[in-house]
Amino acid sequence: MKKYIAEMVGTMVLVLMGCGSAVFAGSAAGEVSAGVGTLGVAFAFGLSVVAMAYTIGGISGCHINPAITLGVFLSGRMSGKDASMYMVFQVIGAIIGSAILFALVSTGSHGGPTATGSNGFADGQMVHAFIAEAVFTFIFVLVVLGSTDSKKGAGAFAGLAIGLSLVLIHIVCIPITGTSVNPARSIGPALFQGGAALSQLWLFILAPFVGAAFSAIVWKTIGSGEQTA
Amino acid sequence: MKKYIAEMVGTMVLVLMGCGSAVFAGSAAGEVSAGVGTLGVAFAFGLSVVAMAYTIGGISGCHINPAITLGVFLSGRMSGKDASMYMVFQVIGAIIGSAILFALVSTGSHGGPTATGSNGFADGQMVHAFIAEAVFTFIFVLVVLGSTDSKKGAGAFAGLAIGLSLVLIHIVCIPITGTSVNPARSIGPALFQGGAALSQLWLFILAPFVGAAFSAIVWKTIGSGEQTA
Amino acid sequence: MKKYIAEMVGTMVLVLMGCGSAVFAGSAAGEVSAGVGTLGVAFAFGLSVVAMAYTIGGISGCHINPAITLGVFLSGRMSGKDASMYMVFQVIGAIIGSAILFALVSTGSHGGPTATGSNGFADGQMVHAFIAEAVFTFIFVLVVLGSTDSKKGAGAFAGLAIGLSLVLIHIVCIPITGTSVNPARSIGPALFQGGAALSQLWLFILAPFVGAAFSAIVWKTIGSGEQTA
Amino acid sequence: MKKYIAEMVGTMVLVLMGCGSAVFAGSAAGEVSAGVGTLGVAFAFGLSVVAMAYTIGGISGCHINPAITLGVFLSGRMSGKDASMYMVFQVIGAIIGSAILFALVSTGSHGGPTATGSNGFADGQMVHAFIAEAVFTFIFVLVVLGSTDSKKGAGAFAGLAIGLSLVLIHIVCIPITGTSVNPARSIGPALFQGGAALSQLWLFILAPFVGAAFSAIVWKTIGSGEQTA
Repeated sequence: MKKYIAEMVGTMVLVLMGCGSAVFAGSAAGEVSAGVGTLGVAFAFGLSVVAMAYTIGGISGCHINPAITLGVFLSGRMSGKDASMYMVFQVIGAIIGSAILFALVSTGSHGGPTATGSNGFADGQMVHAFIAEAVFTFIFVLVVLGSTDSKKGAGAFAGLAIGLSLVLIHIVCIPITGTSVNPARSIGPALFQGGAALSQLWLFILAPFVGAAFSAIVWKTIGSGEQTA
Repeated sequence: MKKYIAEMVGTMVLVLMGCGSAVFAGSAAGEVSAGVGTLGVAFAFGLSVVAMAYTIGGISGCHINPAITLGVFLSGRMSGKDASMYMVFQVIGAIIGSAILFALVSTGSHGGPTATGSNGFADGQMVHAFIAEAVFTFIFVLVVLGSTDSKKGAGAFAGLAIGLSLVLIHIVCIPITGTSVNPARSIGPALFQGGAALSQLWLFILAPFVGAAFSAIVWKTIGSGEQTA
Repeated sequence: MKKYIAEMVGTMVLVLMGCGSAVFAGSAAGEVSAGVGTLGVAFAFGLSVVAMAYTIGGISGCHINPAITLGVFLSGRMSGKDASMYMVFQVIGAIIGSAILFALVSTGSHGGPTATGSNGFADGQMVHAFIAEAVFTFIFVLVVLGSTDSKKGAGAFAGLAIGLSLVLIHIVCIPITGTSVNPARSIGPALFQGGAALSQLWLFILAPFVGAAFSAIVWKTIGSGEQTA
Repeated sequence: MKKYIAEMVGTMVLVLMGCGSAVFAGSAAGEVSAGVGTLGVAFAFGLSVVAMAYTIGGISGCHINPAITLGVFLSGRMSGKDASMYMVFQVIGAIIGSAILFALVSTGSHGGPTATGSNGFADGQMVHAFIAEAVFTFIFVLVVLGSTDSKKGAGAFAGLAIGLSLVLIHIVCIPITGTSVNPARSIGPALFQGGAALSQLWLFILAPFVGAAFSAIVWKTIGSGEQTA
C-alpha cells in the first residue's frame, strides 16, 4: 500500500509543479515576461522527476506515469495487479495535483498563458501530435527501461538520466502539444480545463501507450546478450 | 560548535547568492535586460544548495533552512537542542548574507528589480501566498527527508536532488511570493528591506513550518515498511 | 549486432531531439518567441547524450558520433572492424532521425528558423567554421577519452561530463555553424535540406575528424604515467 | 610534467569556452538576440569546469585557477614548487585559450558584446568590484576545499559541485565585473583587449587571492574535528 501512496504523491508533485510552472511562470510568444519561458517549464517537469526519483525511488521505483508502468509491466518486471494499482493511484495523484493548482489559481493572479497546463493540439494537426507523443514517449520509456536495467543500467544515475531526458523531451515537444508522454499528467488538468482538453484526451492516453509498448519491444531486442567492446 | 558555524556559513552563502542573483541579474516584466531572468534566479538558489551540500554536508548535514531543521527534528533524527542551535545560527548567517549584499549594493549599481531580494505578496493574496509557501515547503522538505533517509534514500545523490528540487520550486513560486520555503532566507532580507517585507514576515515563517511538519507526517507514513517491487 | 543497433538508435535520438529542438523551439534574432532559444537547443543536444549514455552505455559505450569512434579507435580501445560498423550504423541512425523529423514537419507547423537543423556557414567564413569545428571537436573528444579512461577516468560520471560538455560546446558554437562536432549529425539533416548543406558537408566531416585525431594524440601525451599530487 | 600540461590544457579550455560563449553567444541589454544571454554564459564557464574536472581531474586535480591553487597550497595539500608551476602553466593555458579565440574572431563575425571576454568595472566602482571578486572567490574556493576534503568531502561529486558553483557565481557576478574569481582567466583576455582591461588587471589578481586565502582559514576552522549529527 505504501508504494501506491508514494506513486500518488509523486504524480501529484509532477502535475502540480510541472503544470504549475506553465501557469505561473510560462510565457507567450511575442511577450517579454518576467517568467521562465519554455525552457523553464521544461526544467520544471524534468526536475520534478529528478526530485521524486530520489525521494520515493526506494519505495515504489518512482514511475509516476502510466506509460512507464506499462513499459515496465510489458518488460516482465512487475505484476499485472501492481501495474493496475500503480496506474489508478497515479491518476488520483494527478487529479490532486491539478486540484491544488486550481486552489492556487482561484486565490490569486497568474501570469502564464494557461490556467491548468492541459495538453492539446491545433485543428488539423492530430497526426502531427500523435507522431510526436508516440515517438517521444518511446524515447522516454526506452531511457527508463535502459537506465534501470539491473545488469546494463545506470544504477543510481538513472534518476538523473530519466529526469534530464524529460527536460529534453519538453524542450522539443512543448511547442507541439505542451508535452504529455504521460496519460496521468494529461487527465488531471483536462478535468479542470474541460472543452478541447477533454475531447482530445484520448490521444494523450493512446499515443503514449503505443510509444511505451514499442520501447519494451526495442529494449528486449538490444538490451540482452553480448557485452560492449 | 563547528557544525553550527557551518550552518551559519551555508545560510550566508544561500542568502547572498540567491538574493544576490535577483538584485544584480534579475529582470522585470516587459524589459529586455542583460540579466539571467527568473530561470537564472531559480538556478542561483538551487545551485547554492548544491554547492553547500557538497561542502558542509559532511560537517552539519547542510540544512541551512529552519524548515528543514524542523522536519528533521520532528522525524526524530536530531535533538531539540541541536535543532534550536541550528535555527539560531541559520538566522545569523542569513543576516550576514544580507549585510554583505547591502555592502555590495551600497558601493555600486545594480540592474535587478529589488535591492534586497525580500519576499512578499500583493494585497488580497495572503491565502494564495500561504498555500503556495506551505505546499512548496511540504514538497521541498519531503525531498530532503526521503533522499537523506538512511535506508531508502539517495546516498550522495541527495545533494543534487535537494538542490535541483529547490530550482524547481523557485521556477514555480518566484512569480507568487519570490519564494521563501525557508524562514531564515526571508528574515535576513526583510531586516534590510523593512516595510511590507517586515509586516508580512510572519507568513514566511509560519507557512514553511506548517509545510515542513506535514512532510514529517507524510514521510513517516510512506517511508517505512515493505520494499519496492 | 546488438551494439550496432544501439548506436543506430542512440544517434537517431540525438539527431531527432537535438535538431528537433531547433526546428520546433529554436528562435531567431530580434524575435521574442515562445521557444527555448539557443540555450535550450544547446541543452537539447547535450541532454540527448546524457539520456543515451545511461541507456545504451552498457551496450555499445554510446559513441553515437563517428568523430568519437575515430578517437576511441586511434587510442587503441576498439578494433577497426567495430569502428567501421559503428560509423555506418551511426549514419543510418542519423538519417532515420532526420526522416522522423521530416515526418513531423510535414504533418504540422513549426516555429523555429530551420526545418531540418542542418549545419552551415556564411560565405567567406570557411576558415572560421573549420577552426571552430576542429577545435571544439578536439575538446569534446578529449573529454570523452579522459572521462572514460579506465584508470584515470570518471567512472559512471562520464555520461554526465560528456553530455554537459556538449551543452557547453553548443552554447559557444551554435552562432558559428549551428554546431556539428559529429559528422553523422550533419549528414542526416543535409540529405533532407539539400543545397548549401550538402555542398558544405565535407567540412563537417573533415574538421571533426581532424579534431578527434588531435584529441587522441593529446590524451596519449597527458593521460598516462605519474599520478596527481 | 604531465600534470602541468593538463593544467595548461584545462585552463585553455576554460578561457576559450567561457569567454568564447560571451563573444559569440552573449547578449547586450535591450537587445533581443539569438544568443544564450547571461545565463548561457554562466553555464559555459561552469560546464567548462565540469568537463575538465572529469577529464584531467585524475591527472592534476583540475585546478585551472591560480586562486584555487593558492587555497590548496595554503591548506597544506601541495608543495610550493608544484603550486608555482601550476600557476605558470595555468596562465600559459589562458593565453593560448585567448589566442585561439582571437583567431576565431579574426576569421569571422561574432554577435556578442565583447571580442575577448575580458573583465572590468565601471569608473568609481572599484570597491564594489573588489568586494564582489574577493567574496565570490572565497565562496568558490571554500566549495573546492570542502568538496575535495579527503575525509568530509564529496568524492566524485566534487567536480559537479565545483562546476555548478561556478555557474552560480557567474549568474550573480557577470553584471558586476563579468566575473573573474580566477587570475589566469583575467590575464589571458586582458592581453588581447588592452586598455582598461590591462590597467584594472591588478584587481582581478589581488581580490581572488585575498578571497582564496580567507577560504583556507575558514575551512581550517570548520573542516576538522567532531562529526555531524
